[in-house]
Amino acid sequence: METLNTLLNHRSIRHYSNRDISEKTLQQILEAAVRGSTTGNMQLYSIIITRDAAMKAQMAPLHFNQPMVTSAPLILTFCADLNRFSKWCQYRDAAPSYNNIQSFFWAAADTFIAAQNACIASESLGLGYCWLGTISYNTDEFIKLLKLPKLTLPLACITFGYPQETPDLTDRLPIEAVCHQETYTNYTQESINEFYAIKENLESTFNLLKENNLQNLAQIFTQKRYPKKDTEFFAEKLMKVLAEQGFIK
Amino acid sequence: METLNTLLNHRSIRHYSNRDISEKTLQQILEAAVRGSTTGNMQLYSIIITRDAAMKAQMAPLHFNQPMVTSAPLILTFCADLNRFSKWCQYRDAAPSYNNIQSFFWAAADTFIAAQNACIASESLGLGYCWLGTISYNTDEFIKLLKLPKLTLPLACITFGYPQETPDLTDRLPIEAVCHQETYTNYTQESINEFYAIKENLESTFNLLKENNLQNLAQIFTQKRYPKKDTEFFAEKLMKVLAEQGFIK
Repeated sequence: METLNTLLNHRSIRHYSNRDISEKTLQQILEAAVRGSTTGNMQLYSIIITRDAAMKAQMAPLHFNQPMVTSAPLILTFCADLNRFSKWCQYRDAAPSYNNIQSFFWAAADTFIAAQNACIASESLGLGYCWLGTISYNTDEFIKLLKLPKLTLPLACITFGYPQETPDLTDRLPIEAVCHQETYTNYTQESINEFYAIKENLESTFNLLKENNLQNLAQIFTQKRYPKKDTEFFAEKLMKVLAEQGFIK
Repeated sequence: METLNTLLNHRSIRHYSNRDISEKTLQQILEAAVRGSTTGNMQLYSIIITRDAAMKAQMAPLHFNQPMVTSAPLILTFCADLNRFSKWCQYRDAAPSYNNIQSFFWAAADTFIAAQNACIASESLGLGYCWLGTISYNTDEFIKLLKLPKLTLPLACITFGYPQETPDLTDRLPIEAVCHQETYTNYTQESINEFYAIKENLESTFNLLKENNLQNLAQIFTQKRYPKKDTEFFAEKLMKVLAEQGFIK
Protein backbone atom coordinates (compact mmCIF):
# COMPACT_ATOMS: atom_id res chain seq x y z
CA MET A 1 0.00 0.00 0.00
CA GLU A 2 3.04 2.30 -0.16
CA THR A 3 1.90 3.75 -3.47
CA LEU A 4 -1.65 4.46 -2.36
CA ASN A 5 -0.33 6.03 0.85
CA THR A 6 2.01 8.24 -1.15
CA LEU A 7 -0.89 9.43 -3.31
CA LEU A 8 -3.34 9.95 -0.44
CA ASN A 9 -0.85 11.86 1.69
CA HIS A 10 0.48 14.30 -0.85
CA ARG A 11 1.30 17.78 0.43
CA SER A 12 2.85 20.49 -1.71
CA ILE A 13 6.26 21.28 -0.24
CA ARG A 14 7.50 24.85 -0.56
CA HIS A 15 10.37 24.85 1.97
CA TYR A 16 13.37 22.69 1.22
CA SER A 17 16.44 21.68 3.23
CA ASN A 18 19.95 22.39 1.96
CA ARG A 19 20.41 18.75 0.96
CA ASP A 20 21.14 18.45 -2.74
CA ILE A 21 19.48 15.95 -5.06
CA SER A 22 21.95 13.33 -6.28
CA GLU A 23 22.44 12.54 -9.95
CA LYS A 24 21.13 9.02 -9.27
CA THR A 25 17.92 10.33 -7.70
CA LEU A 26 17.38 12.73 -10.58
CA GLN A 27 17.84 9.88 -13.06
CA GLN A 28 15.27 7.76 -11.22
CA ILE A 29 12.77 10.63 -11.37
CA LEU A 30 13.38 11.11 -15.10
CA GLU A 31 13.09 7.38 -15.80
CA ALA A 32 9.73 7.31 -14.03
CA ALA A 33 8.65 10.30 -16.12
CA VAL A 34 9.42 8.65 -19.46
CA ARG A 35 7.72 5.39 -18.50
CA GLY A 36 4.35 7.17 -18.38
CA SER A 37 1.70 6.49 -21.02
CA THR A 38 2.25 8.48 -24.21
CA THR A 39 0.10 9.01 -27.30
CA GLY A 40 1.12 6.46 -29.95
CA ASN A 41 4.47 6.17 -28.11
CA MET A 42 5.49 9.50 -29.65
CA GLN A 43 6.70 11.02 -26.33
CA LEU A 44 5.56 14.49 -27.26
CA TYR A 45 7.35 16.35 -24.46
CA SER A 46 10.72 17.70 -23.42
CA ILE A 47 12.00 18.23 -19.90
CA ILE A 48 14.16 21.23 -19.07
CA ILE A 49 16.38 20.60 -16.04
CA THR A 50 17.21 23.72 -14.03
CA ARG A 51 19.93 23.52 -11.36
CA ASP A 52 21.94 26.65 -12.16
CA ALA A 53 21.39 29.44 -9.60
CA ALA A 54 21.64 32.16 -12.25
CA MET A 55 18.91 30.50 -14.29
CA LYS A 56 16.68 30.15 -11.21
CA ALA A 57 17.19 33.86 -10.52
CA GLN A 58 16.00 34.67 -14.03
CA MET A 59 12.99 32.37 -13.68
CA ALA A 60 11.95 33.83 -10.31
CA PRO A 61 10.27 37.07 -11.49
CA LEU A 62 8.42 35.16 -14.25
CA HIS A 63 7.00 33.02 -11.42
CA PHE A 64 6.05 36.21 -9.53
CA ASN A 65 8.97 35.72 -7.12
CA GLN A 66 7.61 32.67 -5.34
CA PRO A 67 10.53 31.93 -2.98
CA MET A 68 10.81 28.22 -3.81
CA VAL A 69 11.99 29.04 -7.34
CA THR A 70 15.37 30.15 -6.01
CA SER A 71 15.46 27.94 -2.90
CA ALA A 72 14.67 24.60 -4.55
CA PRO A 73 17.73 22.58 -5.63
CA LEU A 74 15.92 21.39 -8.75
CA ILE A 75 13.26 22.71 -11.11
CA LEU A 76 11.82 20.64 -13.95
CA THR A 77 9.88 22.39 -16.70
CA PHE A 78 7.83 19.98 -18.80
CA CYS A 79 7.09 21.25 -22.29
CA ALA A 80 4.67 19.98 -24.90
CA ASP A 81 7.02 19.18 -27.80
CA LEU A 82 6.02 18.49 -31.40
CA ASN A 83 9.35 19.86 -32.61
CA ARG A 84 11.48 16.77 -32.00
CA PHE A 85 8.91 14.45 -33.55
CA SER A 86 8.45 16.72 -36.58
CA LYS A 87 12.23 17.03 -37.06
CA TRP A 88 12.50 13.24 -37.02
CA CYS A 89 9.82 13.04 -39.72
CA GLN A 90 11.55 15.70 -41.84
CA TYR A 91 14.91 13.89 -41.66
CA ARG A 92 13.14 10.70 -42.82
CA ASP A 93 11.43 12.09 -45.89
CA ALA A 94 8.07 11.92 -44.12
CA ALA A 95 5.83 15.03 -44.11
CA PRO A 96 4.76 15.98 -40.55
CA SER A 97 1.52 17.96 -40.06
CA TYR A 98 1.55 18.43 -36.33
CA ASN A 99 1.29 22.22 -36.21
CA ASN A 100 -2.29 22.21 -34.95
CA ILE A 101 -4.38 22.11 -31.78
CA GLN A 102 -5.19 18.41 -32.09
CA SER A 103 -1.50 17.49 -31.97
CA PHE A 104 -1.05 19.97 -29.13
CA PHE A 105 -3.72 18.12 -27.12
CA TRP A 106 -1.84 14.83 -27.56
CA ALA A 107 1.33 16.56 -26.40
CA ALA A 108 -0.42 18.12 -23.41
CA ALA A 109 -1.56 14.69 -22.22
CA ASP A 110 1.93 13.21 -22.68
CA THR A 111 3.52 16.17 -20.90
CA PHE A 112 1.29 16.16 -17.82
CA ILE A 113 1.49 12.37 -17.46
CA ALA A 114 5.30 12.52 -17.51
CA ALA A 115 5.27 15.43 -15.06
CA GLN A 116 2.97 13.73 -12.55
CA ASN A 117 5.02 10.53 -12.78
CA ALA A 118 8.12 12.56 -11.91
CA CYS A 119 6.29 14.08 -8.95
CA ILE A 120 5.15 10.75 -7.54
CA ALA A 121 8.58 9.18 -8.08
CA SER A 122 10.18 12.09 -6.23
CA GLU A 123 7.88 11.65 -3.23
CA SER A 124 8.61 7.94 -3.10
CA LEU A 125 12.31 8.88 -2.94
CA GLY A 126 11.75 11.17 0.05
CA LEU A 127 11.54 14.47 -1.82
CA GLY A 128 8.78 17.04 -1.83
CA TYR A 129 7.54 19.10 -4.75
CA CYS A 130 5.35 22.00 -5.68
CA TRP A 131 3.67 22.75 -9.02
CA LEU A 132 4.06 26.36 -10.12
CA GLY A 133 0.76 27.30 -11.75
CA THR A 134 2.47 30.53 -12.75
CA ILE A 135 4.07 28.80 -15.77
CA SER A 136 0.89 29.52 -17.80
CA TYR A 137 1.09 33.28 -17.14
CA ASN A 138 4.37 34.06 -18.83
CA THR A 139 4.88 31.29 -21.36
CA ASP A 140 6.25 33.83 -23.85
CA GLU A 141 9.08 34.82 -21.52
CA PHE A 142 9.83 31.23 -20.47
CA ILE A 143 10.10 30.37 -24.15
CA LYS A 144 12.78 33.05 -24.57
CA LEU A 145 14.64 32.17 -21.38
CA LEU A 146 14.66 28.40 -21.99
CA LYS A 147 15.32 28.88 -25.74
CA LEU A 148 12.28 26.84 -26.73
CA PRO A 149 11.70 26.48 -30.48
CA LYS A 150 8.37 26.59 -32.33
CA LEU A 151 6.07 23.59 -31.77
CA THR A 152 6.93 23.52 -28.07
CA LEU A 153 5.16 25.09 -25.09
CA PRO A 154 6.01 24.92 -21.37
CA LEU A 155 3.02 23.44 -19.53
CA ALA A 156 4.23 22.25 -16.14
CA CYS A 157 6.92 23.67 -13.91
CA ILE A 158 7.71 21.91 -10.66
CA THR A 159 10.19 22.62 -7.85
CA PHE A 160 11.77 19.66 -6.05
CA GLY A 161 13.78 19.29 -2.86
CA TYR A 162 13.99 17.51 0.48
CA PRO A 163 11.15 18.81 2.71
CA GLN A 164 11.83 21.23 5.51
CA GLU A 165 8.20 21.52 6.54
CA THR A 166 5.32 19.14 7.29
CA PRO A 167 2.19 21.00 6.24
CA ASP A 168 -1.31 19.73 7.00
CA LEU A 169 -3.28 17.97 4.31
CA THR A 170 -5.29 20.62 2.45
CA ASP A 171 -9.07 20.33 2.17
CA ARG A 172 -10.81 18.85 -0.85
CA LEU A 173 -14.42 18.88 -2.03
CA PRO A 174 -16.27 15.66 -1.17
CA ILE A 175 -15.65 12.95 -3.79
CA GLU A 176 -19.34 13.13 -4.85
CA ALA A 177 -18.85 16.80 -5.72
CA VAL A 178 -16.45 16.02 -8.58
CA CYS A 179 -17.83 12.63 -9.71
CA HIS A 180 -20.78 11.93 -11.97
CA GLN A 181 -22.47 8.57 -12.60
CA GLU A 182 -22.75 7.87 -16.36
CA THR A 183 -23.66 11.47 -17.30
CA TYR A 184 -22.90 14.92 -15.88
CA THR A 185 -25.40 16.16 -13.30
CA ASN A 186 -25.31 19.92 -13.39
CA TYR A 187 -24.95 21.82 -10.12
CA THR A 188 -27.83 23.59 -8.40
CA GLN A 189 -27.68 26.18 -5.66
CA GLU A 190 -28.53 23.37 -3.26
CA SER A 191 -25.76 21.00 -4.37
CA ILE A 192 -23.24 23.84 -4.47
CA ASN A 193 -24.19 24.78 -0.89
CA GLU A 194 -23.76 21.20 0.22
CA PHE A 195 -20.46 20.52 -1.59
CA TYR A 196 -18.74 23.78 -0.61
CA ALA A 197 -19.89 23.80 3.05
CA ILE A 198 -16.73 22.22 4.48
CA LYS A 199 -14.43 24.57 2.58
CA GLU A 200 -16.50 27.64 3.46
CA ASN A 201 -16.51 26.81 7.15
CA LEU A 202 -12.79 26.23 7.65
CA GLU A 203 -11.08 28.47 10.20
CA SER A 204 -8.57 29.43 7.50
CA THR A 205 -11.46 30.66 5.34
CA PHE A 206 -12.79 32.94 8.11
CA ASN A 207 -9.28 34.31 8.64
CA LEU A 208 -8.97 35.05 4.91
CA LEU A 209 -12.27 36.91 4.86
CA LYS A 210 -11.24 39.03 7.83
CA GLU A 211 -7.83 39.87 6.32
CA ASN A 212 -9.36 40.81 2.96
CA ASN A 213 -12.55 42.37 4.30
CA LEU A 214 -14.69 40.29 1.94
CA GLN A 215 -17.98 38.47 2.47
CA ASN A 216 -17.23 34.99 1.21
CA LEU A 217 -14.52 32.69 -0.15
CA ALA A 218 -15.66 32.88 -3.77
CA GLN A 219 -15.00 36.63 -3.71
CA ILE A 220 -11.42 35.95 -2.55
CA PHE A 221 -10.95 34.11 -5.84
CA THR A 222 -12.81 36.51 -8.15
CA GLN A 223 -11.51 39.73 -6.56
CA LYS A 224 -8.08 38.85 -5.15
CA ARG A 225 -6.54 35.69 -6.58
CA TYR A 226 -7.89 35.40 -10.11
CA PRO A 227 -9.70 38.64 -11.01
CA LYS A 228 -11.16 39.30 -14.44
CA LYS A 229 -8.50 41.83 -15.53
CA ASP A 230 -5.72 39.30 -14.89
CA THR A 231 -7.34 36.21 -16.42
CA GLU A 232 -8.29 38.17 -19.54
CA PHE A 233 -4.85 39.74 -19.86
CA PHE A 234 -3.01 36.44 -19.52
CA ALA A 235 -5.53 34.60 -21.73
CA GLU A 236 -4.86 37.05 -24.56
CA LYS A 237 -1.11 36.59 -24.12
CA LEU A 238 -1.51 32.80 -24.14
CA MET A 239 -3.56 32.82 -27.36
CA LYS A 240 -0.77 34.82 -29.02
CA VAL A 241 1.84 32.33 -27.81
CA LEU A 242 -0.21 29.36 -29.08
CA ALA A 243 -0.21 31.03 -32.50
CA GLU A 244 3.47 32.00 -32.40
CA GLN A 245 4.47 28.47 -31.43
CA GLY A 246 2.49 27.08 -34.37
CA PHE A 247 -0.40 25.34 -32.61
CA ILE A 248 -3.23 27.56 -33.80
CA LYS A 249 -3.64 29.71 -36.91
CA MET B 1 10.47 1.05 -3.71
CA GLU B 2 6.99 -0.26 -4.51
CA THR B 3 5.97 3.10 -5.99
CA LEU B 4 9.03 3.47 -8.18
CA ASN B 5 8.62 -0.13 -9.37
CA THR B 6 4.98 0.55 -10.24
CA LEU B 7 6.00 3.59 -12.28
CA LEU B 8 8.96 1.94 -14.01
CA ASN B 9 6.99 -1.17 -14.96
CA HIS B 10 3.87 0.39 -16.39
CA ARG B 11 2.31 -1.39 -19.33
CA SER B 12 -0.94 -0.31 -20.97
CA ILE B 13 -3.45 -3.12 -20.45
CA ARG B 14 -6.06 -3.63 -23.16
CA HIS B 15 -7.36 -7.10 -22.24
CA TYR B 16 -9.24 -7.47 -18.98
CA SER B 17 -10.52 -10.47 -17.03
CA ASN B 18 -14.21 -10.80 -16.13
CA ARG B 19 -13.51 -9.76 -12.53
CA ASP B 20 -15.48 -6.68 -11.60
CA ILE B 21 -14.03 -3.68 -9.76
CA SER B 22 -15.47 -3.37 -6.27
CA GLU B 23 -17.06 -0.17 -4.99
CA LYS B 24 -14.27 0.05 -2.40
CA THR B 25 -11.53 -0.18 -5.03
CA LEU B 26 -13.25 2.47 -7.15
CA GLN B 27 -13.46 4.76 -4.12
CA GLN B 28 -9.74 4.33 -3.43
CA ILE B 29 -8.94 5.24 -7.03
CA LEU B 30 -11.15 8.34 -6.86
CA GLU B 31 -9.67 9.41 -3.52
CA ALA B 32 -6.18 9.18 -4.98
CA ALA B 33 -7.37 11.27 -7.94
CA VAL B 34 -8.68 14.13 -5.80
CA ARG B 35 -5.54 14.23 -3.62
CA GLY B 36 -3.48 15.36 -6.62
CA SER B 37 -2.12 18.90 -6.82
CA THR B 38 -4.67 21.39 -8.09
CA THR B 39 -4.38 25.04 -9.14
CA GLY B 40 -5.25 27.25 -6.15
CA ASN B 41 -7.12 24.23 -4.71
CA MET B 42 -9.94 24.93 -7.17
CA GLN B 43 -10.20 21.29 -8.38
CA LEU B 44 -11.08 22.31 -11.92
CA TYR B 45 -12.14 18.87 -13.15
CA SER B 46 -15.03 16.44 -13.12
CA ILE B 47 -14.87 12.67 -13.42
CA ILE B 48 -17.54 10.78 -15.35
CA ILE B 49 -17.86 7.18 -14.17
CA THR B 50 -19.00 4.73 -16.87
CA ARG B 51 -20.07 1.22 -15.85
CA ASP B 52 -23.30 0.86 -17.79
CA ALA B 53 -22.96 -1.47 -20.80
CA ALA B 54 -25.36 0.61 -22.91
CA MET B 55 -23.28 3.71 -22.30
CA LYS B 56 -20.05 1.86 -23.20
CA ALA B 57 -21.70 0.70 -26.43
CA GLN B 58 -22.49 4.32 -27.30
CA MET B 59 -18.94 5.42 -26.47
CA ALA B 60 -17.33 2.67 -28.56
CA PRO B 61 -17.75 4.15 -32.06
CA LEU B 62 -16.57 7.57 -30.79
CA HIS B 63 -13.39 5.76 -29.70
CA PHE B 64 -13.15 4.17 -33.17
CA ASN B 65 -14.36 0.82 -31.79
CA GLN B 66 -11.29 0.03 -29.75
CA PRO B 67 -12.41 -3.25 -28.13
CA MET B 68 -11.45 -2.31 -24.55
CA VAL B 69 -14.19 0.34 -24.47
CA THR B 70 -16.87 -2.33 -24.24
CA SER B 71 -14.78 -5.03 -22.51
CA ALA B 72 -13.43 -2.91 -19.62
CA PRO B 73 -15.54 -3.02 -16.45
CA LEU B 74 -14.85 0.67 -15.80
CA ILE B 75 -14.17 3.80 -17.84
CA LEU B 76 -13.29 7.13 -16.24
CA THR B 77 -13.54 10.28 -18.36
CA PHE B 78 -11.73 13.24 -16.81
CA CYS B 79 -13.07 16.61 -17.92
CA ALA B 80 -11.64 20.08 -17.48
CA ASP B 81 -14.39 21.83 -15.52
CA LEU B 82 -14.75 25.56 -14.94
CA ASN B 83 -18.53 25.18 -14.73
CA ARG B 84 -18.76 24.00 -11.11
CA PHE B 85 -16.34 26.67 -9.88
CA SER B 86 -18.12 29.41 -11.84
CA LYS B 87 -21.53 28.28 -10.55
CA TRP B 88 -20.19 28.45 -6.99
CA CYS B 89 -19.02 32.02 -7.64
CA GLN B 90 -22.37 33.00 -9.13
CA TYR B 91 -24.30 31.64 -6.15
CA ARG B 92 -22.02 33.66 -3.87
CA ASP B 93 -22.44 37.04 -5.50
CA ALA B 94 -18.89 36.83 -6.89
CA ALA B 95 -18.35 37.46 -10.62
CA PRO B 96 -16.41 34.60 -12.28
CA SER B 97 -14.39 35.32 -15.44
CA TYR B 98 -13.06 31.88 -16.23
CA ASN B 99 -14.37 31.54 -19.78
CA ASN B 100 -10.92 31.86 -21.36
CA ILE B 101 -7.89 29.84 -22.43
CA GLN B 102 -5.83 30.77 -19.35
CA SER B 103 -8.43 29.22 -17.04
CA PHE B 104 -8.65 26.24 -19.39
CA PHE B 105 -4.90 25.67 -18.99
CA TRP B 106 -5.28 25.57 -15.18
CA ALA B 107 -8.11 23.08 -15.59
CA ALA B 108 -6.11 20.94 -18.01
CA ALA B 109 -3.28 20.62 -15.47
CA ASP B 110 -5.71 19.73 -12.67
CA THR B 111 -7.50 17.21 -14.88
CA PHE B 112 -4.43 15.32 -16.09
CA ILE B 113 -2.90 15.24 -12.60
CA ALA B 114 -6.10 13.72 -11.18
CA ALA B 115 -6.26 11.25 -14.07
CA GLN B 116 -2.67 10.07 -13.70
CA ASN B 117 -3.12 9.70 -9.94
CA ALA B 118 -6.14 7.48 -10.61
CA CYS B 119 -4.07 5.39 -13.03
CA ILE B 120 -1.21 4.87 -10.61
CA ALA B 121 -3.58 4.08 -7.74
CA SER B 122 -5.33 1.51 -9.91
CA GLU B 123 -2.06 -0.24 -10.74
CA SER B 124 -1.07 -0.35 -7.09
CA LEU B 125 -4.43 -2.10 -6.45
CA GLY B 126 -3.69 -4.78 -9.06
CA LEU B 127 -5.62 -3.26 -11.96
CA GLY B 128 -4.42 -2.36 -15.41
CA TYR B 129 -5.45 0.63 -17.50
CA CYS B 130 -5.21 2.14 -20.94
CA TRP B 131 -5.51 5.81 -21.97
CA LEU B 132 -7.74 6.35 -24.98
CA GLY B 133 -6.10 9.09 -27.00
CA THR B 134 -9.21 9.04 -29.16
CA ILE B 135 -11.03 11.27 -26.66
CA SER B 136 -9.55 14.35 -28.37
CA TYR B 137 -10.98 13.36 -31.78
CA ASN B 138 -14.67 13.48 -31.00
CA THR B 139 -14.99 15.82 -28.01
CA ASP B 140 -18.17 17.30 -29.53
CA GLU B 141 -19.93 13.94 -29.52
CA PHE B 142 -18.64 12.99 -26.06
CA ILE B 143 -20.02 16.30 -24.79
CA LYS B 144 -23.46 15.36 -26.10
CA LEU B 145 -23.33 11.78 -24.87
CA LEU B 146 -22.06 12.63 -21.37
CA LYS B 147 -24.31 15.72 -21.16
CA LEU B 148 -21.38 18.03 -20.45
CA PRO B 149 -22.29 21.72 -19.98
CA LYS B 150 -20.38 24.75 -21.26
CA LEU B 151 -17.04 25.44 -19.53
CA THR B 152 -16.20 21.74 -19.48
CA LEU B 153 -14.19 19.61 -21.91
CA PRO B 154 -13.31 15.89 -21.78
CA LEU B 155 -9.50 15.57 -21.82
CA ALA B 156 -8.65 12.09 -20.57
CA CYS B 157 -10.51 8.84 -21.00
CA ILE B 158 -9.13 5.71 -19.41
CA THR B 159 -10.30 2.08 -19.32
CA PHE B 160 -9.66 0.05 -16.16
CA GLY B 161 -9.85 -3.65 -15.32
CA TYR B 162 -7.93 -6.62 -13.96
CA PRO B 163 -5.25 -7.59 -16.50
CA GLN B 164 -5.65 -10.62 -18.71
CA GLU B 165 -2.38 -10.10 -20.54
CA THR B 166 1.25 -9.40 -19.64
CA PRO B 167 2.63 -7.33 -22.49
CA ASP B 168 6.30 -6.46 -22.84
CA LEU B 169 7.55 -3.06 -21.76
CA THR B 170 7.34 -0.77 -24.81
CA ASP B 171 10.43 1.04 -26.05
CA ARG B 172 11.25 4.64 -25.10
CA LEU B 173 13.71 7.16 -26.47
CA PRO B 174 16.90 7.42 -24.38
CA ILE B 175 16.42 9.78 -21.40
CA GLU B 176 18.92 12.24 -22.97
CA ALA B 177 16.68 12.52 -26.02
CA VAL B 178 13.88 14.20 -24.06
CA CYS B 179 15.93 16.08 -21.42
CA HIS B 180 17.72 19.40 -21.76
CA GLN B 181 20.22 20.93 -19.34
CA GLU B 182 19.21 24.53 -18.45
CA THR B 183 18.10 25.45 -21.98
CA TYR B 184 16.66 23.56 -24.96
CA THR B 185 19.22 22.13 -27.35
CA ASN B 186 17.59 21.85 -30.71
CA TYR B 187 17.85 18.58 -32.63
CA THR B 188 20.16 18.04 -35.57
CA GLN B 189 20.10 15.26 -38.13
CA GLU B 190 22.92 13.67 -36.16
CA SER B 191 21.17 13.75 -32.78
CA ILE B 192 17.90 12.57 -34.33
CA ASN B 193 19.74 9.64 -35.91
CA GLU B 194 21.32 8.76 -32.59
CA PHE B 195 18.15 9.10 -30.45
CA TYR B 196 15.82 7.23 -32.81
CA ALA B 197 18.23 4.38 -33.67
CA ILE B 198 16.88 1.92 -31.09
CA LYS B 199 13.25 2.50 -32.12
CA GLU B 200 14.06 2.30 -35.81
CA ASN B 201 15.90 -0.98 -35.44
CA LEU B 202 13.30 -2.92 -33.45
CA GLU B 203 12.02 -6.11 -35.05
CA SER B 204 8.47 -4.75 -34.63
CA THR B 205 9.47 -1.74 -36.72
CA PHE B 206 10.76 -3.90 -39.58
CA ASN B 207 7.52 -5.92 -39.46
CA LEU B 208 5.45 -2.72 -39.65
CA LEU B 209 7.38 -1.48 -42.67
CA LYS B 210 6.88 -4.78 -44.46
CA GLU B 211 3.12 -4.85 -43.68
CA ASN B 212 2.64 -1.28 -44.84
CA ASN B 213 5.13 -1.32 -47.68
CA LEU B 214 6.78 1.88 -46.43
CA GLN B 215 10.42 2.90 -46.16
CA ASN B 216 10.73 4.01 -42.57
CA LEU B 217 8.90 4.33 -39.25
CA ALA B 218 8.30 8.09 -39.52
CA GLN B 219 6.25 7.44 -42.66
CA ILE B 220 4.08 4.99 -40.70
CA PHE B 221 3.11 7.96 -38.52
CA THR B 222 2.70 10.59 -41.22
CA GLN B 223 0.98 8.36 -43.78
CA LYS B 224 -0.90 5.74 -41.75
CA ARG B 225 -1.44 6.68 -38.10
CA TYR B 226 -1.67 10.47 -38.04
CA PRO B 227 -1.87 11.74 -41.62
CA LYS B 228 -2.35 15.40 -42.49
CA LYS B 229 -5.97 15.10 -43.61
CA ASP B 230 -6.97 13.59 -40.22
CA THR B 231 -4.99 15.89 -37.92
CA GLU B 232 -6.29 18.95 -39.79
CA PHE B 233 -9.87 17.70 -39.79
CA PHE B 234 -9.88 16.93 -36.08
CA ALA B 235 -7.97 20.12 -35.22
CA GLU B 236 -10.67 22.21 -36.90
CA LYS B 237 -13.36 20.32 -34.99
CA LEU B 238 -11.49 20.83 -31.71
CA MET B 239 -11.14 24.58 -32.25
CA LYS B 240 -14.92 24.79 -32.78
CA VAL B 241 -15.54 22.84 -29.58
CA LEU B 242 -13.17 25.08 -27.58
CA ALA B 243 -15.23 28.05 -28.76
CA GLU B 244 -18.60 26.37 -28.16
CA GLN B 245 -17.59 25.38 -24.65
CA GLY B 246 -16.60 28.97 -23.90
CA PHE B 247 -12.80 28.70 -23.66
CA ILE B 248 -11.87 30.76 -26.72
CA LYS B 249 -13.67 33.56 -28.52
